[in-house]
Amino acid sequence: MLIVMKKNASLEEIEKVIERAKTAGFEARPIPGKERTAIGIIGNDHPIDPALFASCPGVKETIPVTKPYKLVSREFMPHDTIIQLGSCAIGGDQNFVVIAGPCAVESETQALSIAHHVKQRGATLFRGGAYKPRTSPYSFQGLGKRGLKILAKVREETGMLIISEALDHELFDIVEEYCDIVQIGARNMQNFSLLRRAGKSKRPVLLKRGMSATVEEWLMAAEYILHEGNDRVILCERGIRTFGDHSRNTLDLSAALFVMRETHLPIIIDPSHASGRRDQVIPLSRAACSLGVHGIMVEVHNNPERALSDGPQSLTFEEFDELMRHLNIIVGSMKILKSTTSGMRKVEGNNLDFENLFFKTGLLSTKGVTKGEGHDTISRL
Amino acid sequence: MLIVMKKNASLEEIEKVIERAKTAGFEARPIPGKERTAIGIIGNDHPIDPALFASCPGVKETIPVTKPYKLVSREFMPHDTIIQLGSCAIGGDQNFVVIAGPCAVESETQALSIAHHVKQRGATLFRGGAYKPRTSPYSFQGLGKRGLKILAKVREETGMLIISEALDHELFDIVEEYCDIVQIGARNMQNFSLLRRAGKSKRPVLLKRGMSATVEEWLMAAEYILHEGNDRVILCERGIRTFGDHSRNTLDLSAALFVMRETHLPIIIDPSHASGRRDQVIPLSRAACSLGVHGIMVEVHNNPERALSDGPQSLTFEEFDELMRHLNIIVGSMKILKSTTSGMRKVEGNNLDFENLFFKTGLLSTKGVTKGEGHDTISRL
Amino acid sequence: MLIVMKKNASLEEIEKVIERAKTAGFEARPIPGKERTAIGIIGNDHPIDPALFASCPGVKETIPVTKPYKLVSREFMPHDTIIQLGSCAIGGDQNFVVIAGPCAVESETQALSIAHHVKQRGATLFRGGAYKPRTSPYSFQGLGKRGLKILAKVREETGMLIISEALDHELFDIVEEYCDIVQIGARNMQNFSLLRRAGKSKRPVLLKRGMSATVEEWLMAAEYILHEGNDRVILCERGIRTFGDHSRNTLDLSAALFVMRETHLPIIIDPSHASGRRDQVIPLSRAACSLGVHGIMVEVHNNPERALSDGPQSLTFEEFDELMRHLNIIVGSMKILKSTTSGMRKVEGNNLDFENLFFKTGLLSTKGVTKGEGHDTISRL
Amino acid sequence: MLIVMKKNASLEEIEKVIERAKTAGFEARPIPGKERTAIGIIGNDHPIDPALFASCPGVKETIPVTKPYKLVSREFMPHDTIIQLGSCAIGGDQNFVVIAGPCAVESETQALSIAHHVKQRGATLFRGGAYKPRTSPYSFQGLGKRGLKILAKVREETGMLIISEALDHELFDIVEEYCDIVQIGARNMQNFSLLRRAGKSKRPVLLKRGMSATVEEWLMAAEYILHEGNDRVILCERGIRTFGDHSRNTLDLSAALFVMRETHLPIIIDPSHASGRRDQVIPLSRAACSLGVHGIMVEVHNNPERALSDGPQSLTFEEFDELMRHLNIIVGSMKILKSTTSGMRKVEGNNLDFENLFFKTGLLSTKGVTKGEGHDTISRL
Repeated sequence: MLIVMKKNASLEEIEKVIERAKTAGFEARPIPGKERTAIGIIGNDHPIDPALFASCPGVKETIPVTKPYKLVSREFMPHDTIIQLGSCAIGGDQNFVVIAGPCAVESETQALSIAHHVKQRGATLFRGGAYKPRTSPYSFQGLGKRGLKILAKVREETGMLIISEALDHELFDIVEEYCDIVQIGARNMQNFSLLRRAGKSKRPVLLKRGMSATVEEWLMAAEYILHEGNDRVILCERGIRTFGDHSRNTLDLSAALFVMRETHLPIIIDPSHASGRRDQVIPLSRAACSLGVHGIMVEVHNNPERALSDGPQSLTFEEFDELMRHLNIIVGSMKILKSTTSGMRKVEGNNLDFENLFFKTGLLSTKGVTKGEGHDTISRL
Repeated sequence: MLIVMKKNASLEEIEKVIERAKTAGFEARPIPGKERTAIGIIGNDHPIDPALFASCPGVKETIPVTKPYKLVSREFMPHDTIIQLGSCAIGGDQNFVVIAGPCAVESETQALSIAHHVKQRGATLFRGGAYKPRTSPYSFQGLGKRGLKILAKVREETGMLIISEALDHELFDIVEEYCDIVQIGARNMQNFSLLRRAGKSKRPVLLKRGMSATVEEWLMAAEYILHEGNDRVILCERGIRTFGDHSRNTLDLSAALFVMRETHLPIIIDPSHASGRRDQVIPLSRAACSLGVHGIMVEVHNNPERALSDGPQSLTFEEFDELMRHLNIIVGSMKILKSTTSGMRKVEGNNLDFENLFFKTGLLSTKGVTKGEGHDTISRL
Repeated sequence: MLIVMKKNASLEEIEKVIERAKTAGFEARPIPGKERTAIGIIGNDHPIDPALFASCPGVKETIPVTKPYKLVSREFMPHDTIIQLGSCAIGGDQNFVVIAGPCAVESETQALSIAHHVKQRGATLFRGGAYKPRTSPYSFQGLGKRGLKILAKVREETGMLIISEALDHELFDIVEEYCDIVQIGARNMQNFSLLRRAGKSKRPVLLKRGMSATVEEWLMAAEYILHEGNDRVILCERGIRTFGDHSRNTLDLSAALFVMRETHLPIIIDPSHASGRRDQVIPLSRAACSLGVHGIMVEVHNNPERALSDGPQSLTFEEFDELMRHLNIIVGSMKILKSTTSGMRKVEGNNLDFENLFFKTGLLSTKGVTKGEGHDTISRL
Repeated sequence: MLIVMKKNASLEEIEKVIERAKTAGFEARPIPGKERTAIGIIGNDHPIDPALFASCPGVKETIPVTKPYKLVSREFMPHDTIIQLGSCAIGGDQNFVVIAGPCAVESETQALSIAHHVKQRGATLFRGGAYKPRTSPYSFQGLGKRGLKILAKVREETGMLIISEALDHELFDIVEEYCDIVQIGARNMQNFSLLRRAGKSKRPVLLKRGMSATVEEWLMAAEYILHEGNDRVILCERGIRTFGDHSRNTLDLSAALFVMRETHLPIIIDPSHASGRRDQVIPLSRAACSLGVHGIMVEVHNNPERALSDGPQSLTFEEFDELMRHLNIIVGSMKILKSTTSGMRKVEGNNLDFENLFFKTGLLSTKGVTKGEGHDTISRL
């Protein structure tokens, strides 16, 4: 941490800061400047609480130098965290997962028909809300436990993995019992007791970014979970709130890139909530995939017009088919890129059937593709 | 609700919307325009879920006409809600309350010394965090139950009313047991199960606005509480998150004005969290008071330099004295304004002991200005 | 436009609104509702100024129904605008252009070395600032006219098209004289006299989105230019200002999608200014390309460490080579998608040498790619 | 400036940064930390361009320590800048000015009737747009030069000072010729050539804050003007763009406080544009005044319903009278506060004619409260 003193700071005030740093077990290195003195605080294993100095007389500002998060950072754990659930792996540079399903579970028929469809097209996880966080107490709140039982049925019948949201402490127990992954929603990103509960879970946790959370706050929320002992956290960027009114939220791809660089945790994108518009889900999914994230979560409905919530952003079956076709092509092109770009994160997406796909698309027809020629090609352009 | 059809919407599509409106029990009034057709949906007692129409083919957009909140609105309840706690009344046009105390309860000595001081200066409620929501798991998390016992001691010794935050469902029970008012923090504004729990409480609830909540979302959160049966809700504007970096948040006074106009609930301002800067708390408090809100909540500490949290925004005792002196003058001038402005909300601030305060602040000493003419003057206006 | 009356609006007030609408030459259709009356205003060729009604007594709010922009909208002009400059076409579904160059022109050597490099790799337009808008008067302000002469030299030597920013009215004349495309920067997006000047130009204009401009304001700015007679406008999304601090701005891809849907104008993305971070430029460019926009504009420097401005976001030559290799693959995969997706915008990007590329990558080896199998593939996944 | 090196930064990389700092004429003080090395750069008279180091290999981030602005800062000029125009003084701790008038000059009758009214109530400056920046090319654009002639007539007839906006370089000349103060609008805050032109003017300049400008960017815009030689700049906070939709913008009072603390320039508030709602202008003006700023600028119209622009936010004559009555009370109470608070900015507001105003507002009539005790009281404090 760097402490910047006021221009007119007295020697006593400077001494006081240094002494306080020492009593707190740190070292203090004054940097006398032309205009003012700055003091570098070092020797801290964990981040320093600015409050310790911010209130000292003569202090102008305190500037954190090291990041406040630790367990989630690559500096702490350099290798990608890979969450293995049966045959499905989330994270690392080998996988691209598609989580699909309705916003809310409405009935067994609805859930099953959607699940069978998305499963057949290549989705590996099924999402569906049993307990819905709704802005209005007058909106549909979800089927509750009945919804979870339906999800269990879906897994039983389709073999898909199940993910659903836990709205609070109590519900966490039951959602954890029924689901393979427990979701913590954007509105609960800083519900610290829920985060602590999640930290004690044996289930992986999908942590959505808060609507106006800085990336740092988001990572600190994940830090809560890891700190309690659960290191199987999947981050999910779902758009932030801005002044814009042409889409429901603003998808923040830079945040995803920052997360992939700074942390070892898997990150996926939710284009449905980010845009709130069905017509943007497919192109934003292509964008997310070409970015190199670990997967996407999209809303699909057998009859969006009749959806009890978020109808306007749910894909129809036909649209979902198109989405998957597009994703396969993009995942394929990412594969070419990885193979020709040293040091680039690999996204083999090997839980999609590539051999087959690439043959069909001709991508596999020339072995040379992945070594060298690709590059020659370009240089000749 | 107004439904705007696409330019090329077919007659069938228009018919379909009308029919769906009818099956939902509403009336539909088409407005054929030069460019496109719009359809007015009427006959609804409660707001309509846009999802019902947004997904119909041919629909361009759905525009809500009536507000989604009901119980909190003045249209539903025209008179100000006044929350009476012993001699202290919050809300209405007769009161201006000052809630003061440390960010976090640190020890009995700390709490009592602060309480005695602010009580003597005219504060009627004591705030202090026992359970702290902290961005970092490595920061001080509060004394928990011990903190609540200390707060109880404060009430016992000073007779002040006590307010503290409940972080979740479970903690609500215990906070409710110890405190006169239970606070729901900004990060929990859309923690719907917590809101429902608050709705079942016999205690008044102070509901802080979420960091990036629209006023409508905020009022809908309050609607949750009223909907469960608890109509004693105090709203608290504490600043919103913007791109600005010169203050911790941006105090949104327009939101307070909007709330006073649209709802019957009391609203107070928290200048400490809004600015995050001690030097801005007093002027922002004057501004809040001159706006006509029902009170303020400020952080005060006996030794801000040593505060375990939010030191930089806590007032010293001397600063708090100055704050109260300033508030009394502003409250006084508001009193003049009310008495001379027809239809303006009255703020008599009569739960502040003027005689005593003016004396304390020394205003009384000068030529009987305030004991005598000054004060009479005001009452005579 | 829909006018919503207050609950207690009198018949007179309603009459007054209707009368005012008529005197303004519109028709008014009252919609008496259960709670309140709404009035639909129709028969307007161009958008209505809300001020006309917003101030009438009894009016609660005015809700615009038709969009305020006209000339830029697809409803007005359904076909993509394609801007042809020599062999380079911008817009439509056949092209993907790469605009590259330094933030600021620093010297002839610098400009030429960068131009030769990016030209050889497939960039068709060269960007370089001669007049720089800098937040600080103490920062490098650009070489001015000398910079423009250098740009002219670049065109002469490399045959690339030249684009540079005009900061004001006066400078527009000279920039227009030297460049093939004149850029209007984000800070000038609502510099209306500059927009009018641009509207009288014979040059195409690249209009960047303002840092906090809504898409509607942005399109209205373009409307100014078209309204003055210049319909060759290229829109450029360059990120918006949000609370986020992990990137310089937040790239708003939803805005690009909205623009492609609502308008007929070409749109490109500037990932360099959007992120402000060199390490994000390549992945964001892939994302932009996979979205289907008409091109990108990136900063490249022969020696970023020494760049006089925006060094941290400029690509090195090696990074630019990698960018182009990545783009070719993504553009290629977009081509497959177009050919297999009915109604999808085509991006052949035929000003890159695809024949050659696709042969090398094998994409062209199977004709079957573009019919059917692609889809079968998926169904088998 | 503090330069933070990456954990794995090599000694060479550190050396390189130090060497670059030296060649740039600064001193570099390395601070070897437990985790990483930081380097303090000192010995700079003016702010350092981060680009100089940000692009060096091994550099993690550069943290500016000294502020980038100089001429506008109190550290450079400790005393308040007071702009004296005839009998009217803007700035310092003795003055509170009221600038009033219509959004746009519509006719001589309109302008004169408004001017006579606001003048009589105590406004000292008359505002009125001759050239209007309008989002839509289809909206009223102002009367242009004819509008300026009308403003001149207003000054001639009423003796009020005149202020109007200059949209560009060219128009600046003519606005400067007719007006006492030239306004630069929010949309032009970073129109640098306009700022430079303003820096060469003999007229004071009112510089509005950009809709999404950080305070630092705003002060840097002012720095441009001072840097060119014109140190008579008045800052105007007019609300920032946020996600909120309950008001047109969000008034940022913390920015005003920050400005008063950091700079010596006068600052006023524009509650009309900040809220965009007539019903919020009076309370926000009270808030601004109680904050201690140097004045306000409000929109007043003789017939808001018929206003050609911004009708909904313009005050009626009756509302303006109420505003002035309120302001006098608040200014009066601020006077009490100043006289009893050591070191607090004084706001005597002595360029408002209290005697006259209190009489006009009727406060004088009531039992001599204000003529006599009331007023004496205040002066006696």
